[in-house]
Amino acid sequence: MELSDIRQNKITKQWVIYSPARKKRPKDFHMPTRKSRVPAHDSTCPFCQGNEHKLPSATMQITDAKGEWKTKVVPNKYPALTPQGSLERVTRGIYLAIKGYGHHEVVIETPFHNRQLGIMAADEIGFVIETYHRRYVDLMKKGENMMIIIFRNHGLRAGTSLVHPHSQIIATGMVPHHIRWREEEAQHYYDKWGRCIFCDVLAYELNHVQRIVSENDSFAAFVPYAAEVPFEVWIMPKTHKADFGNISDGEKGDLTRILKDTLARYYQKLGDPDYNYVINTSVRYRANEPQLHWYLQVLPRLMTRAGFEIGSGININPSIPEEDAEYLRHSSA
Amino acid sequence: MELSDIRQNKITKQWVIYSPARKKRPKDFHMPTRKSRVPAHDSTCPFCQGNEHKLPSATMQITDAKGEWKTKVVPNKYPALTPQGSLERVTRGIYLAIKGYGHHEVVIETPFHNRQLGIMAADEIGFVIETYHRRYVDLMKKGENMMIIIFRNHGLRAGTSLVHPHSQIIATGMVPHHIRWREEEAQHYYDKWGRCIFCDVLAYELNHVQRIVSENDSFAAFVPYAAEVPFEVWIMPKTHKADFGNISDGEKGDLTRILKDTLARYYQKLGDPDYNYVINTSVRYRANEPQLHWYLQVLPRLMTRAGFEIGSGININPSIPEEDAEYLRHSSA
Repeated sequence: MELSDIRQNKITKQWVIYSPARKKRPKDFHMPTRKSRVPAHDSTCPFCQGNEHKLPSATMQITDAKGEWKTKVVPNKYPALTPQGSLERVTRGIYLAIKGYGHHEVVIETPFHNRQLGIMAADEIGFVIETYHRRYVDLMKKGENMMIIIFRNHGLRAGTSLVHPHSQIIATGMVPHHIRWREEEAQHYYDKWGRCIFCDVLAYELNHVQRIVSENDSFAAFVPYAAEVPFEVWIMPKTHKADFGNISDGEKGDLTRILKDTLARYYQKLGDPDYNYVINTSVRYRANEPQLHWYLQVLPRLMTRAGFEIGSGININPSIPEEDAEYLRHSSA
Repeated sequence: MELSDIRQNKITKQWVIYSPARKKRPKDFHMPTRKSRVPAHDSTCPFCQGNEHKLPSATMQITDAKGEWKTKVVPNKYPALTPQGSLERVTRGIYLAIKGYGHHEVVIETPFHNRQLGIMAADEIGFVIETYHRRYVDLMKKGENMMIIIFRNHGLRAGTSLVHPHSQIIATGMVPHHIRWREEEAQHYYDKWGRCIFCDVLAYELNHVQRIVSENDSFAAFVPYAAEVPFEVWIMPKTHKADFGNISDGEKGDLTRILKDTLARYYQKLGDPDYNYVINTSVRYRANEPQLHWYLQVLPRLMTRAGFEIGSGININPSIPEEDAEYLRHSSA
């Protein structure tokens, strides 16, 4: 009888269970091809070219030489947080609350309703990365913003019903436990070994190759040893930097290429799965500390979190990271 | 402009965002009534009466005076963990792993394919609670089991595709961060104030009534102040006890009644929503410590966790806890 493999995420210490009895092959995850053909333009979509009047005025946009916009950032029409809010913590009986300070923006990634990152050209994705970076730097200029989360929800199972390609950016005035915990674990490691735990993980993965999906000069894309979900991929910069805001122009080009490559592999080999990605970067006051290292985490939504995951924080992953990496790596699939 | 309310879970310190711009009314969450009428018996279902030969022999069962079984516990056919595994932690390069020790059982809650807790009679639910308790006590007799999670997945969005009513029990040989963190926060509170944080929360809620859904002699059911999802309910014993294993016979009867009442409210007022519930109880070595307090947590699956929740650990909840409680409380809905 083959035993389950319970693996520990080296950074967060979270455990993940890999059970041979629950094992699935990549084909078992294949999403049904999206049924409806999406048109290049939808006259009712506020994000489509020509419908700009349906949107608040843009916070920023990238335009080409002809003055046509390529990406555009607008305040979220249904914001979770707003700059009018306060940072002050108020008590309500025994409880704490904050009155809603933050920023919530939408990055419209393309004027075309039916483009998506999995099939975009590199220059289009380049505009998206450039937009993330400019908004990140700009939002960090406001001292109230302690943490910025850049994320993308692709598909219904990933939490979006809007088809037009977009990402979101949320800046908050507080740091949640989830982030503080990762940063504290990295600090314990740094205090003990004098090295960045992310650099150590990356060096180990590059050296052992079995979980690497692809790499270029500045980045490696790999399935983490204790991947929480099937086909999870981390895209990690080879140069140690705590803060996404410090990404260089050369790195932006390499990030564009490796993100395009990763999402194209998903698209081609997993049948355009729903996924989320998020840029994990340091909070404001740790941006120059030596123990942290930003990375982009992609999580396909092929599984449903159930009661055990909710109650224990332990994921059950029916797919083996080394096999996931091999499947994504080889073009024969 | 109405600001978002960001609330802190007093126990775990997690933040939850309540945004007026994203607010929904209870009717917006209503699940479509389950389409297919489920038969009382399915000849292909291994959990149905008469199909016992399709199952491994029962670990335990509760039978009536006529010898008919009411509930039955069997090993999970696709176990995440197995007792043949080892507790030993092994290193693999820079990483840690454990070779699969644990228990994974299925509680078949009724011989009838189409019963479910939301519409069961009290005596049927009583058998389920009694089964949980007996298995919990029995599994805790094995010194290797550090933590036991009893949970229920109801419906596809809650992670189950099996219609026949069932719960699951997983025992593990290690304690994950998620649990340790809750227990440590409770310990900090106890060290500072000399009281159980759960007792303080319960006393406050009973005193302020606005988030209470129902109560009886031994339990209160309430929507927590920082509910992570719409219509989350905690069912908490009024008598301070760290360990679910110490539930008394009187408490079992009251838990049966309040669980039936809560799930019937979901069924009637939210249109039989998918949900998970989990019994949060202390780990083995804290079972007699004074700072912990077990409770049953019910989480309807009306929302999809997206990139922001994954990246920050902060949930965005479009529903206000006080209003959720009022909606569940009143029969006029």
